[in-house]
Amino acid sequence: MCEKKRVGLYERFGFIDDMIIVDKFSEVAGDRCKTILKKKNAIIVPHGTLISQMSSDEIEKIETPIFGNKWILRWEADREMKQKLMEEAGLRTPRPIKSKDDIDGLCIVKLHGAAGGKGYYLAWNRESFEEGAKRLVQQGMIRGEQDLYIQEFIRGVPAYLQYFYSPVTKSLELLGVDRRYESDIDGIGRIPARQQLGAGGEPSYTVVGNIPLVLRESLLDEVYRMGEGFCRAAERLVKPGMPGPFCLEGVYDSEGKFTTFEFSARIVAGTNLYVDGSPYSGLLYDEPMSMGRRIAREVKVARKKNRLASIVT
Amino acid sequence: MCEKKRVGLYERFGFIDDMIIVDKFSEVAGDRCKTILKKKNAIIVPHGTLISQMSSDEIEKIETPIFGNKWILRWEADREMKQKLMEEAGLRTPRPIKSKDDIDGLCIVKLHGAAGGKGYYLAWNRESFEEGAKRLVQQGMIRGEQDLYIQEFIRGVPAYLQYFYSPVTKSLELLGVDRRYESDIDGIGRIPARQQLGAGGEPSYTVVGNIPLVLRESLLDEVYRMGEGFCRAAERLVKPGMPGPFCLEGVYDSEGKFTTFEFSARIVAGTNLYVDGSPYSGLLYDEPMSMGRRIAREVKVARKKNRLASIVT
Amino acid sequence: MCEKKRVGLYERFGFIDDMIIVDKFSEVAGDRCKTILKKKNAIIVPHGTLISQMSSDEIEKIETPIFGNKWILRWEADREMKQKLMEEAGLRTPRPIKSKDDIDGLCIVKLHGAAGGKGYYLAWNRESFEEGAKRLVQQGMIRGEQDLYIQEFIRGVPAYLQYFYSPVTKSLELLGVDRRYESDIDGIGRIPARQQLGAGGEPSYTVVGNIPLVLRESLLDEVYRMGEGFCRAAERLVKPGMPGPFCLEGVYDSEGKFTTFEFSARIVAGTNLYVDGSPYSGLLYDEPMSMGRRIAREVKVARKKNRLASIVT
Repeated sequence: MCEKKRVGLYERFGFIDDMIIVDKFSEVAGDRCKTILKKKNAIIVPHGTLISQMSSDEIEKIETPIFGNKWILRWEADREMKQKLMEEAGLRTPRPIKSKDDIDGLCIVKLHGAAGGKGYYLAWNRESFEEGAKRLVQQGMIRGEQDLYIQEFIRGVPAYLQYFYSPVTKSLELLGVDRRYESDIDGIGRIPARQQLGAGGEPSYTVVGNIPLVLRESLLDEVYRMGEGFCRAAERLVKPGMPGPFCLEGVYDSEGKFTTFEFSARIVAGTNLYVDGSPYSGLLYDEPMSMGRRIAREVKVARKKNRLASIVT
Repeated sequence: MCEKKRVGLYERFGFIDDMIIVDKFSEVAGDRCKTILKKKNAIIVPHGTLISQMSSDEIEKIETPIFGNKWILRWEADREMKQKLMEEAGLRTPRPIKSKDDIDGLCIVKLHGAAGGKGYYLAWNRESFEEGAKRLVQQGMIRGEQDLYIQEFIRGVPAYLQYFYSPVTKSLELLGVDRRYESDIDGIGRIPARQQLGAGGEPSYTVVGNIPLVLRESLLDEVYRMGEGFCRAAERLVKPGMPGPFCLEGVYDSEGKFTTFEFSARIVAGTNLYVDGSPYSGLLYDEPMSMGRRIAREVKVARKKNRLASIVT
Repeated sequence: MCEKKRVGLYERFGFIDDMIIVDKFSEVAGDRCKTILKKKNAIIVPHGTLISQMSSDEIEKIETPIFGNKWILRWEADREMKQKLMEEAGLRTPRPIKSKDDIDGLCIVKLHGAAGGKGYYLAWNRESFEEGAKRLVQQGMIRGEQDLYIQEFIRGVPAYLQYFYSPVTKSLELLGVDRRYESDIDGIGRIPARQQLGAGGEPSYTVVGNIPLVLRESLLDEVYRMGEGFCRAAERLVKPGMPGPFCLEGVYDSEGKFTTFEFSARIVAGTNLYVDGSPYSGLLYDEPMSMGRRIAREVKVARKKNRLASIVT
């Protein structure tokens, strides 16, 4: 399925056999798409753009089979459900800071219901918190401090862990690791401190790409334990669990401990790095195994074993 | 063709069939090389080192066929022609700042005719501009402020877009994306602000390598549009246009918009990352497609179709 | 050989034919392992974790053949021997600063006998040196300033050069380049200067991963010269020299010059990036050549040529 404005782009890639052109992705739930997809015996693989354009209610009403668990996408979208699932999974998450009076170190201030990090800022004490809030009020982004919540800022380096869980083989696979490339926050390190202070300005966190990385080998064990904890928690809280691709997104601190900020319960953009396989897929497969191919493989295997019901919702 | 001092290095690589050894690359235009190259029925693929060692006049006088458009290399070398071609291509470029009195935010101060970023500095007001100029005068790098020009500093993250345009198939291909790895500017982020301020020092922008990356998928459409705009502009301004490899070099800002600083109208160093193909070549080809192989392929196809004249100058 | 706590992890990877399970790696020198390994006609490929868990004396007493030179591992472990070997190899190393009164620019302060960068700090004058020392005393990490030594801080960008030397073919191969990904030092560039200064805090240098990179092509010649200098120095100082994998670890400065901080005289973690080969192995081999496969290949070739004695100790 392709948005009309992007047809020109995707026509460049010869590996695409067929396109259903839509004005916007929400049409996927409509009769026209439903009929075409049914005729093609299709499975939808939901991506970030699709789910960002639809409400959880709309997604859940899609009648075409969805690869993975469409019910868990609501847990990805809702901040409190997301936090609950991460806690159930035993993941370390950033400490919430109840009040501006409790700030005693670097923290990140976020907007309730904000999209994509817009307006987020760093503060280190009550004064810097209030200053940031005042700026957001002036910009009309919030009504007042009550629209903000504060989290401990985890000092460390970002890492995104790309998993695939197969309910057919009951096995979890780490297929890649990356870090996001964000503008302009990943560029401010290229501005010396003196010039930063002289020129002022607030950073932003717009994702523009991804950079590949591998982890220190001794961290892999915990990576698998976190992924398995997530799958088990998903099975308990939102049936049928977490079949297919998902991603844990966080920071490694100076003790080599991982704190999870977010999860994506579906394929993520960082897998674009590994169209021909990753260093991690190379440990598991003797052929280039992208996340896309892994999904296709799962469908084939599940069909053969009459287990399609366990991988779609 | 290999500089004598590098023969030892390139002899290590078994895939090199033949070497013509020169003291310096400018010999390529001389009778000895011309005769050898003619006998071998050779096509020259110009790289950054070759063109940095020759004037545009010298390059244009080379009689051996050159892959791509040798006339456009003058547009790459000359700052004003470069700007003109980028504007004709509809590319967003940094805003020039006419006078030091107009500085009202972070800007980058460059030297007319300087090589490789040496002496460039960041300023944020009249005072910091003058302070930098004074330092350069003391270092004997400029005579006075008249040797400087000022550009808006684009806050964002760098990205280098590696394209190949085939006049034979009339198609544009994005074959890779990277970012440069520059010393010491990409190291200062590893010095805390307090230590930076304590120790002082001015950053430099020496390219020492390249890091692979992929872009957010929603940016790809504009990437192709920019590349096509560049090809069309080249066709209008400098015949025969832009056959072969080229690179747009710039920064993604916090809106996900790309501002182009420079272009290279030939193969670039970042393609060294993708000797076995890139995530982008993987979308287009079922075999590992490096930029080098893509060039060789184009020569073969063009010869077969009797179109060699369209890919060399 | 696998530590008991990691068996679950390594069982995930189908390419592992056999595991000898140990409580800790030092058991490799014990009778049980020796007997099993002898029966299997095994060669040990030592990695960083193995040698970090054993003293040089213990390593040298291992009777199972060790790939590479087990005697050089003492030179890797001992700071003064390490420095001596780097100097013998003609490598540029950071200038030691004799006294806190000689500090006149950014320097890094290290602890005698410290593990993994813990406690290291940056200073730029006598005052900042003393302030850091006082903090370490308070934290109980040192007794006093006499436990510290000072080195020039090299401004630049880190690079790790992964080599393989074959005594059978007498050839040196560059098989990959990476940079480490360290927490939280590689994250502080994502904190604006103002917030860094407001919140305070000292960076740490915990390795959590590796990022791939390629070098500017004109730097490769020196990369090979440094590697060869290292091999020749090893042959002179610690027989039989440097067969197998090793790594030079340092920084490229703004002149494109490399300063070496450390070496590893064995396989390193950064090679995990290149399980399917690197851009550099691609220049040398027509098949995906990881460092692991290169080692296996060397063993096969040496056995065939009756040269096993030259690659193990």
